[in-house]
Amino acid sequence: MDTGKKTLIVFSGDLDRAIAAFIIATGAAAMGDEVTMFFTFWGLNILRKAKAPRHHKAMLQGMFSAMMPRGSQRLGISKMNFGGLGARMMRLVMRQQHVMSLEELMASAREQGVKLIACRMSMDVLGLAEDELIDGLEYVGVATYLGEADKAGVNLFI
Amino acid sequence: MDTGKKTLIVFSGDLDRAIAAFIIATGAAAMGDEVTMFFTFWGLNILRKAKAPRHHKAMLQGMFSAMMPRGSQRLGISKMNFGGLGARMMRLVMRQQHVMSLEELMASAREQGVKLIACRMSMDVLGLAEDELIDGLEYVGVATYLGEADKAGVNLFI
Amino acid sequence: MDTGKKTLIVFSGDLDRAIAAFIIATGAAAMGDEVTMFFTFWGLNILRKAKAPRHHKAMLQGMFSAMMPRGSQRLGISKMNFGGLGARMMRLVMRQQHVMSLEELMASAREQGVKLIACRMSMDVLGLAEDELIDGLEYVGVATYLGEADKAGVNLFI
Repeated sequence: MDTGKKTLIVFSGDLDRAIAAFIIATGAAAMGDEVTMFFTFWGLNILRKAKAPRHHKAMLQGMFSAMMPRGSQRLGISKMNFGGLGARMMRLVMRQQHVMSLEELMASAREQGVKLIACRMSMDVLGLAEDELIDGLEYVGVATYLGEADKAGVNLFI
Repeated sequence: MDTGKKTLIVFSGDLDRAIAAFIIATGAAAMGDEVTMFFTFWGLNILRKAKAPRHHKAMLQGMFSAMMPRGSQRLGISKMNFGGLGARMMRLVMRQQHVMSLEELMASAREQGVKLIACRMSMDVLGLAEDELIDGLEYVGVATYLGEADKAGVNLFI
Repeated sequence: MDTGKKTLIVFSGDLDRAIAAFIIATGAAAMGDEVTMFFTFWGLNILRKAKAPRHHKAMLQGMFSAMMPRGSQRLGISKMNFGGLGARMMRLVMRQQHVMSLEELMASAREQGVKLIACRMSMDVLGLAEDELIDGLEYVGVATYLGEADKAGVNLFI
């Protein structure tokens, strides 16, 4: 339903799903909607800086962050990734087709005022500190997401 | 909420998720709802013809379509597929249990007037031409989906 | 939209997605919402008893249930599972971070009155009998889910 607001939970850290999420978000924002994207679990990898300050992490907590992709440029696709080759192909075809790249979509989302919020609990579990993620985020709990969803007419889990 | 309308984004091209999507769609249509299914990315494979006219495609653009499954009969399941064996087993058990096959569900959806719309941008990225997909689709952009979602009370991303 | 009711379709049987589903469900219940979780396909594995009565099953029907994880303790994570090691790591880090385990979240959901309903058709396809699942469930068809979703303002597919 149209309430002028939409929310997306971005759980997945796959390039293809991230692109879908940001196309929906920027499309809705272009139509005048307020959009909130709640990044949780693997979806946080989309927001990682390629080069982040080093942190001394507890061993277990540091293992996920050490092995997960550092930022949007390193994401794989959910099918036919072939060790990153599929992701590169998808990026190339998108450029040929004059489709915005994930990074351009992310920049466009921010210019249009899409609100990006990061799940604090997932950050703790995956061992990601605030300064390892891109700037301008809010760090929140599930209650904040639920409050936004209660105002929105379209809510998706991606 | 009940607005008499529901939408489904079908992003996944897995047999099990496709079945779930069409069971929800046909169930809602049987209860009198207007249903729109928006096929994007791998979900487009559900709509491919098994035998389609050949197209001369740019090399990169043709690579995805050459490697992706051609139509509903060739989809794998998302877990325990074992090179297609799992999908065959699931089809067999469904027949034993008198559950409609994916193809029967798709036919039923169309008879009941479920609207099938295909994401034009994804078709371009994956190298799929209109005549490679089943007939009777509309080819649209994300704005069309968003317009439908704004009228619907239940919107899912599958 | 806030109608005081939310529904979640739990299609996935991955530990990480199950945790996300129950965090959303218990969070919403804590805020006073009525919550219904509809378990279908692999999501049913979350509800399996670790030790269930043996059933004589038709060969094909028994194959899925024989190979699928028996209950919440045996679920893998959707990324970096490494044969169960990833799931164990995630559980350990969650305990260190004082996040509730999946089993605690499930108990909390039930205490708060979250309604758990299981898809009868999926049970038949995957060969799961009622007494192989935890107690207190309702066994329903898609029409029951759709009726609940029609009353809910937030509906997610996980």
